[in-house]
Amino acid sequence: MDLLIKNGTIVTEKEMFRGDIAVKDGIIVAIGNDLSDIPCKNVVDAIGKLVLPGAIDAHTHLAMPFGGTVSADDYYAGTRAAACGGTTTVFDFALQDFNEKMVDVVKRRDALAAPQAAVDYAFHIGVKDVHGELLDSMKEAVEYGVPSFKVFMVYDFGVTDGVFYKVLAKAKEIGAMISVHAENNEMVNMLVEKYISEGKTDAWHHYLSRPEFVEAEADSRAIAWAKSLDASLYIVHLANKQGVEYVTKAKEEGYHIYAETCPQYLHFTCDVYKREDGRNFVCSPPMKGQESQDALWEALKRGDIDTVATDHCPFQQAEKDWGKDDFRKIPNGCAGVENMYPYMLGKANEGVIPFTKAVEVCSSNPARIFGCTQKGSLTVGKDADIVIYDPEKDFTVTCENMHSDYDHTVWEGTKLHGYPVKTFSRGRLVYDNGEFVGEPGWGKLLKRKLSQ
Amino acid sequence: MDLLIKNGTIVTEKEMFRGDIAVKDGIIVAIGNDLSDIPCKNVVDAIGKLVLPGAIDAHTHLAMPFGGTVSADDYYAGTRAAACGGTTTVFDFALQDFNEKMVDVVKRRDALAAPQAAVDYAFHIGVKDVHGELLDSMKEAVEYGVPSFKVFMVYDFGVTDGVFYKVLAKAKEIGAMISVHAENNEMVNMLVEKYISEGKTDAWHHYLSRPEFVEAEADSRAIAWAKSLDASLYIVHLANKQGVEYVTKAKEEGYHIYAETCPQYLHFTCDVYKREDGRNFVCSPPMKGQESQDALWEALKRGDIDTVATDHCPFQQAEKDWGKDDFRKIPNGCAGVENMYPYMLGKANEGVIPFTKAVEVCSSNPARIFGCTQKGSLTVGKDADIVIYDPEKDFTVTCENMHSDYDHTVWEGTKLHGYPVKTFSRGRLVYDNGEFVGEPGWGKLLKRKLSQ
Amino acid sequence: MDLLIKNGTIVTEKEMFRGDIAVKDGIIVAIGNDLSDIPCKNVVDAIGKLVLPGAIDAHTHLAMPFGGTVSADDYYAGTRAAACGGTTTVFDFALQDFNEKMVDVVKRRDALAAPQAAVDYAFHIGVKDVHGELLDSMKEAVEYGVPSFKVFMVYDFGVTDGVFYKVLAKAKEIGAMISVHAENNEMVNMLVEKYISEGKTDAWHHYLSRPEFVEAEADSRAIAWAKSLDASLYIVHLANKQGVEYVTKAKEEGYHIYAETCPQYLHFTCDVYKREDGRNFVCSPPMKGQESQDALWEALKRGDIDTVATDHCPFQQAEKDWGKDDFRKIPNGCAGVENMYPYMLGKANEGVIPFTKAVEVCSSNPARIFGCTQKGSLTVGKDADIVIYDPEKDFTVTCENMHSDYDHTVWEGTKLHGYPVKTFSRGRLVYDNGEFVGEPGWGKLLKRKLSQ
Amino acid sequence: MDLLIKNGTIVTEKEMFRGDIAVKDGIIVAIGNDLSDIPCKNVVDAIGKLVLPGAIDAHTHLAMPFGGTVSADDYYAGTRAAACGGTTTVFDFALQDFNEKMVDVVKRRDALAAPQAAVDYAFHIGVKDVHGELLDSMKEAVEYGVPSFKVFMVYDFGVTDGVFYKVLAKAKEIGAMISVHAENNEMVNMLVEKYISEGKTDAWHHYLSRPEFVEAEADSRAIAWAKSLDASLYIVHLANKQGVEYVTKAKEEGYHIYAETCPQYLHFTCDVYKREDGRNFVCSPPMKGQESQDALWEALKRGDIDTVATDHCPFQQAEKDWGKDDFRKIPNGCAGVENMYPYMLGKANEGVIPFTKAVEVCSSNPARIFGCTQKGSLTVGKDADIVIYDPEKDFTVTCENMHSDYDHTVWEGTKLHGYPVKTFSRGRLVYDNGEFVGEPGWGKLLKRKLSQ
Repeated sequence: MDLLIKNGTIVTEKEMFRGDIAVKDGIIVAIGNDLSDIPCKNVVDAIGKLVLPGAIDAHTHLAMPFGGTVSADDYYAGTRAAACGGTTTVFDFALQDFNEKMVDVVKRRDALAAPQAAVDYAFHIGVKDVHGELLDSMKEAVEYGVPSFKVFMVYDFGVTDGVFYKVLAKAKEIGAMISVHAENNEMVNMLVEKYISEGKTDAWHHYLSRPEFVEAEADSRAIAWAKSLDASLYIVHLANKQGVEYVTKAKEEGYHIYAETCPQYLHFTCDVYKREDGRNFVCSPPMKGQESQDALWEALKRGDIDTVATDHCPFQQAEKDWGKDDFRKIPNGCAGVENMYPYMLGKANEGVIPFTKAVEVCSSNPARIFGCTQKGSLTVGKDADIVIYDPEKDFTVTCENMHSDYDHTVWEGTKLHGYPVKTFSRGRLVYDNGEFVGEPGWGKLLKRKLSQ
Repeated sequence: MDLLIKNGTIVTEKEMFRGDIAVKDGIIVAIGNDLSDIPCKNVVDAIGKLVLPGAIDAHTHLAMPFGGTVSADDYYAGTRAAACGGTTTVFDFALQDFNEKMVDVVKRRDALAAPQAAVDYAFHIGVKDVHGELLDSMKEAVEYGVPSFKVFMVYDFGVTDGVFYKVLAKAKEIGAMISVHAENNEMVNMLVEKYISEGKTDAWHHYLSRPEFVEAEADSRAIAWAKSLDASLYIVHLANKQGVEYVTKAKEEGYHIYAETCPQYLHFTCDVYKREDGRNFVCSPPMKGQESQDALWEALKRGDIDTVATDHCPFQQAEKDWGKDDFRKIPNGCAGVENMYPYMLGKANEGVIPFTKAVEVCSSNPARIFGCTQKGSLTVGKDADIVIYDPEKDFTVTCENMHSDYDHTVWEGTKLHGYPVKTFSRGRLVYDNGEFVGEPGWGKLLKRKLSQ
Repeated sequence: MDLLIKNGTIVTEKEMFRGDIAVKDGIIVAIGNDLSDIPCKNVVDAIGKLVLPGAIDAHTHLAMPFGGTVSADDYYAGTRAAACGGTTTVFDFALQDFNEKMVDVVKRRDALAAPQAAVDYAFHIGVKDVHGELLDSMKEAVEYGVPSFKVFMVYDFGVTDGVFYKVLAKAKEIGAMISVHAENNEMVNMLVEKYISEGKTDAWHHYLSRPEFVEAEADSRAIAWAKSLDASLYIVHLANKQGVEYVTKAKEEGYHIYAETCPQYLHFTCDVYKREDGRNFVCSPPMKGQESQDALWEALKRGDIDTVATDHCPFQQAEKDWGKDDFRKIPNGCAGVENMYPYMLGKANEGVIPFTKAVEVCSSNPARIFGCTQKGSLTVGKDADIVIYDPEKDFTVTCENMHSDYDHTVWEGTKLHGYPVKTFSRGRLVYDNGEFVGEPGWGKLLKRKLSQ
Repeated sequence: MDLLIKNGTIVTEKEMFRGDIAVKDGIIVAIGNDLSDIPCKNVVDAIGKLVLPGAIDAHTHLAMPFGGTVSADDYYAGTRAAACGGTTTVFDFALQDFNEKMVDVVKRRDALAAPQAAVDYAFHIGVKDVHGELLDSMKEAVEYGVPSFKVFMVYDFGVTDGVFYKVLAKAKEIGAMISVHAENNEMVNMLVEKYISEGKTDAWHHYLSRPEFVEAEADSRAIAWAKSLDASLYIVHLANKQGVEYVTKAKEEGYHIYAETCPQYLHFTCDVYKREDGRNFVCSPPMKGQESQDALWEALKRGDIDTVATDHCPFQQAEKDWGKDDFRKIPNGCAGVENMYPYMLGKANEGVIPFTKAVEVCSSNPARIFGCTQKGSLTVGKDADIVIYDPEKDFTVTCENMHSDYDHTVWEGTKLHGYPVKTFSRGRLVYDNGEFVGEPGWGKLLKRKLSQ
C-alpha cells in the first residue's frame, strides 16, 4: 500500500463516519473502520481531523489575456495555489481563436498547461466562432475528453443569441454541457456609456452599470433557449436573486439547468464598491445587494445552486489602478482559487451548512455535472485526491500566506476557523501545513465523460 | 338637435340598456329612456339593433413602405374600410427617419393623412434614432398630443435593448406610453438562415423561423426592462401562450403592462401556413399553435389582454407572390381594419364573450390606454362615434364587399351572424348598410392626453 | 320630471363627466350635458359636487342575535344610518333556523325589515341545515329573488365541509352565489382554549387566537371546494395577505372567485387590540398586520378584491365590556354602515384610488355580483339611487353625528375631507346635509336576478 | 472476518462502483477494490450482481386491527416477507389507546413484535389522545428512541386540526417528525353517504368518494399548519398531482416538508376499481388518475418525493369480499412489503430511474428522515443490511411465491426483470434465492436519533 490515512472522520457528500483510507497507485483501494493490518510505510494519522475529497474548481482563468494584460496567475501559480487551498482539480477556460477548431483550442492551451500544472486540470472551451465546420468540430473535442463549452453573452468575445442557440443545439445533439456567462451586453454598454458621459467613473458605477436586472434578464434568456431545446445549461457565477428564481422554476419544471455561484458573491455585497479600494473588487458580474446574497445562500442550501467555483482571475494592483478614475479600465476579476474550499468548509465549521453540503457543491456536484468520473468522491476506485482539514486551526488570509503570484487579494484579512493541513493529488502529498510541496507538471489533463 | 338614435339597446363596456341618444355638434348631449320630446329632424330608429361606441383600431400601417413596396391601403382606403367596419378611430404608425425630431415625424405623416382620412386618426411614433437631442424631442411630441411611441425589437428599423431602455426611461419621465413589437431578432435571423440554407422556403418555415419561444423570450425581455423602471409598456400583437403568462404575472405584481392581440391570432392558427395560399397569411409574428390561441382567448376573457387591434397591413397578391419560393420575400402583413369589430361583435353574438367585453377591448380600453379622452364610450360629452349593429344580419366577407384597396383578404369567406349597418363619425353618417357614405378629409388628427 | 340634478360631475365606475340627470318615477330617465329644457319643479344644483350612484353594502347584520344579545341596530336604525352615509342598498343576513325552508327564512326576517327599512334592502340566507328537502329549497328562494346564500366555517351556526360542499354544488346547479366566512373553526377553538388556559384573556389574544394563517387556511379550503365544482364563491371580509394570494391565483386560473374586504381592515391593523379599548374593535376575523393591510389595498387597486362592505354589527359599550377580562365574552362586531362610502370616497379624494374605483367596489361590483340589476350605476333606466358628494366638506366622525343606535364607534375621531351632502333613494331625498329626512318603510325588498 | 461479498457492483444513493465488502459483527468494516487478502470463511461471489443497502419500508401495518378484523400479516409474516423482498428494516404504526402514554404504546406493541421480527423494525406512534400530560409524554418516546409520530386526518382514530397543530408544535419543540395521513374526513363522509344513498356501492365509488381534490385539500391544510410553525412534516402515501405541487412549492420556500408515495400509486391508476376484483385494490387514499401517477413519477425523479414505502396492510380475500356489495365494508389496504424494492429496482433496471435513485428513495432517504443512523447506506461502520440483486433474473409475482400470510395480492402476475437473490440482516443471511432462511426474533427494535 502506498498511503494509509487513519482515524479521521471521512466526509462524503452524504455522510460523515470514522474510518481509514488506503491508497495504491494513486487510487483509493479500500475504506475500512480499521485498516491497520494492511502493511504500508506511509501512514498519516488524521485523528481529530476531517478527511475530504479534494475540491474541484470548475471556473478559473489562468494566464488569461484580458483588458489589455494577462491574468496574474499562470498554470503553475494557479494550480499551486489551488493545491494549497485543498483544490485538486482546476478547470480553465480555453478561449477559441477565430477559425480555430475546438480540439485545437484545447491542444493549444494544453501545451501551456501541461508542463506547469501542479494538480489535475481540465478545460472548458470558450466558443467564439461556429461558422462552417467549426460547429461540428465540437464533437471531436467531446471525443477528446473535453465535453464542455462556454459562451459569453457579453464582452467582445461574446456571441449573439443565434450563435448561442446553435451551440446549445449542437451540444444537445452530442451530449455536451454548455456554460454561459449571462449578462445583457447592450444594456451594460448603454449604462456604461451613460455613467461615463455623466462623469460617474468610480467602481460603484461599475456595479450600477451591471445591476441585478441586467444579469437576471440574461439568465432568463439563456434558460429560455435551453428550455426550447430541452438542452442542458450551466449558468456560471450566478449572483442575483431573480436569476435564482428562474433557475429554481426551471429545475422544478424538470429542465437540466445548473447554477454555480462563487465565494465572493456569498461573502461580499455591492457595498464593497463604495470602499476606497473598490476597484480591487471589480469583477463581472459584480457583487450584488444583500437580498441577492441571501437568495444565493438559500438556493445553495436547498440545492438549486449546484456548485461553488471561483472565477479566479486576479490582476496585479498596478493593473487594477489603471481604472482608478475610469471603471472601464479596471481589468475584471479577483482571486479565489486558494480561498474557496477553506471558505466553504469554514462556513460548515460555523454551522451555516453541513460539511456534506460543502463537499457536494465544491466537489461531488462539479464532478458529476462535468463528467469527472474519477473525481469528486471518497470512494473505492476513485483518484486519491484527498484533503485533511483541521477544524480547530485558525487562519487569517493575507496576500503573503497565499501561494499565487498576485500582489493583493480581496480576501485579505478574512479570518477562518478550521483550515486544510494536507492535500494529496492522486495520493501524492502536494500541500503540507502551509507549504506547497508539489511540483509543476504533476497535474494531468482530465479526459472527461459526458455529464451524468 | 342634429341626430337622435332611438329605441336601440345601448351597449357600454359595462352594461346594456334600452335608450335613446341625442347628438349635437358631433357630441353626445343626452341619453335617455325616451327623448322624443327633443325636436330633431334626423331621427334614426334603432329598434332591435345594438348601439355601440365606434371601435378604435390602435394598430394599423397605412401607406407603409415595407419589404420593397408600400402597404396596399393609403390613408383614404384604410379609413374608408375602417368606417365600413364600425371603426371610427384609426391609429397609424409614423416611422421616424434617422435624425428626425419626433414631432416632425408626426407632421410629415399627417400631411399625407389629413386630406385623406375618412374617420379620426392618431399616430404612434415608431422610434429608430434617439441620438443627441432626439430622445428629449419625445416630450415635444407628447405636448403636441402624440403621447405614444413604438419600438421594434426586430426588422432593420428595430432598436437595440439599450435604445429600448432609454426610450422607456424617457417615457416614464414624461408620462408617455411605449408599445413594442416583441420578437427576438437574432433568433429569427438565425432560424431564417438555417431553413433557407436547408432549402426550406415555404410559408410554413416563415412560422418555424418565428416560433412561440422566439416571441415569448422577447416578451419576457421587454417586460423586464419595463419592470426595472416601473414604466408602462404595451405589447402589440401578442400571439403566444408563454407571453400571455408573462403579462399576467406582471399585472399581478402591479406593473403597468398592457397587451394587445389581433383577430387573426384569435381566429387562425399556424396551420394556415400549410395551405397552398399560406403566403397570403404571412405576417409577423405569425399565427401560432392552438394552445396559444386558447391562451389568448382566456386572457382576453379574464382581462389580461386589454385590447384587440388589427395590425392592418395588406399587400397585393402579386407582391405576396414574390415569396412563392422564398418566404423571406413575402411582404409581411394582412388585412383586418374592416374585419375587427364585426368579428369581435360576431363572437359576442355567438355568446363567446359578452358584448360589453367586445366594446371594452375594441373601444374603451384603447381609448383609456392611449389617452383618447373624447372616444371609447357612449357617454354624455363624448364624440358621437356610434355604430348601429344588426344582430340578425348575415354577412360573408369577400374581397368585393370590403372597402379597402387590396385585391385579396385572409378573411375571404368568413361568415358572420350580425353586422354593422350604420357608422357615425362625430355624428356624421359615414357608412350606411354596405355603402361608404363619408368623404376624405373628414377625419381629424386626435390630440391625445396621457394614458389614464 | 320629478327631479333634475344639474351641473354636477357624474361619476360612474369607469369615468367622470359633467352632466345633468333627470329622474321620473324613481328611475333615471335621462343624462345630458344640459337638460334645462326639461320642465321640473325639483331642481338640485350640484355645481362643484360629485354625483355618484348610491353605495350597496353587501354585508350587514341588523337586529342580529349574537353572543347573548342582539346587535345594536335594528332595520330602521341600520338603514337610516346607511342613508346618511350614502348607502342606498343594504344586504342583511337572514340566518336559517333548523328545519326551516330557505324562502321561509327570508319571509320571517322580511316581516321585521319591511316596516322599518329606510332604503332598499336585500337578504343573503345564512345556511345551517340542509337535511332532507331543505337543500332543494334553495331553488325556491332563488325564484323568490334571493339568489345568494352564506355559510360560516366557524361559530356554532357554522357548517361542516361536507355541508358547505353540498351547498356549493346545489348553488352551481341553480345559479346561486355562495358567500363564506372563512376561518378554521377547530384552530380557533384550540387557540382560544390555549390562551385562556394560560390566563391570556385580553383583546390582543382575541387576535392571536385568529391569526393570519387561521384565516388563510380556510380561504384556501373554501376555494378548493369551489374549484372542484367550478362553482362561484364570494369570500366575505377577506383580511389576510395569504388569502389575497389564493384569490388572485384562482382568478388567474379562470375561476369565479370573488373577494370582499371591509373598511376596518383597510384602516386599522391588529395594533388596535393593544389599546385599552381594544375590546371595542373585536370582530371576526380580527384586523391583521400591516403586511395584510398593504396586500388588501394592492389587491383592491388591481381588481382582485371586488367589493368593499362593512360587516356592520355594532354592540353597545356595556355589552362589549362583558369581555373586559375574557375576550371570549365580547360580542363580535363593529359599526360601519354609515362610514364605508365616506371613507372610500375620502380615500379617492386623497388620491389613493380613483373615484371610479370607489364606485366600482362600493356600488357597481356588488350590484353585478349579487344580481341587483336596477342598482349600482348612474345609467338611464336604473333606480335613481344617487349621492351628492361635496369634495371640500370636512367632517369628523363622532358617535353623536352618526345615525345609528349604538353608543360608541371604532371610527370615533376619524377625520374625512369630503362628505356626502344628499342621498336619494329611488329619487326621494332621504338624507340632507347631516339630517336624515327619510322614513321607515320606504325601503323595499330587492328581488334579484342571478349573478352576472 | 465474518462475511466477504466480492466482485459485485456496489450501489449507493450516489454512485456505482466495483468493489468488495467485508463484514464483522454485523457491521460493514471495509470496502475495497480487492479485499481478498482478508481471511474470511464466508465469501459470497457477487460477480455480475448489484450489491445494495437493504430497503427501509417506513410504512407498514402489521397485526393491525382495522375494519372489524386484523391485517393479514403479523410481525413474523410481515418481516419475513420484507426480508424476502430485500427490505431489512420495517416501520410499523403503533396506534395509541386513549389515555395511554406514548412510550407505553411502543412497549405494548414491541411486546408483540420482539419475539416475531425477522428483520430490524421501528415504530411510528399513531397519536389519538393528547389530553393532559399525554402531549408532553411525546418527549419520553423520543428519548426512548422513537422520535416519529403520525396523525390521521380521517378514520375514527383521526384527530382534529387543533390536535394536529398541538402535536406539530410539540414535535417542533422536541425535534420529532410528524407523519400525516391527509384526506378530508368530512368530505369523504359526505361523498360516501351520497353515493350509498344513490345505491352506488361498488369499488369505483370508493375511489369517487376520495377523489383527487379531497386528498389535495388535506395536503394543503397539513402543509399550512407545518408552515405556520416551521415544523417538519412527512406526508405519507401521497397520491395526487395537486398535492405534489403543494409539496414542491413548500420545499422551494425552504420548509421541511417530506413526501412519501407507494408502489401501488406508481403502478396502478383508479381504473383498477372498475375491474371485477376492484375491491381487492381498495386502500385509502385510493389510486388516482393517470395525471396524478405521472406527477408522482416526475416528482420522484426530481426529488420532491423523498421516499417510497408500502402502506402494507393486506387482508384476506374473504374479508375483502365483505364489501362486494358495499364498498364501506371492504377493509382498506393492500400487500406490498415484499414487492417494493423489487419493483423499484425493476424500474431502475428498465432505465426509468437510476439504481442510485431507487436506493435513495427506498433506503437512504427514509434512514435520514427517520434518524436510522445505522441504516440506509453501504458505508463503513453501518449495519451490514445488504441485498444482492441479479439484474438478469426474471420473476413473476404470485401469491404462492410471496412469503406473507395473505391469500391474494394486487401484484399477482406482475413480471419483473431482475430480482433480489440474497438478503443479509446485520450480516446474517435471511433470504436466499427464493427461500426465507431467517428466524423470528432476530430482528431488533431500532433506537433512532432525530431526523437529520
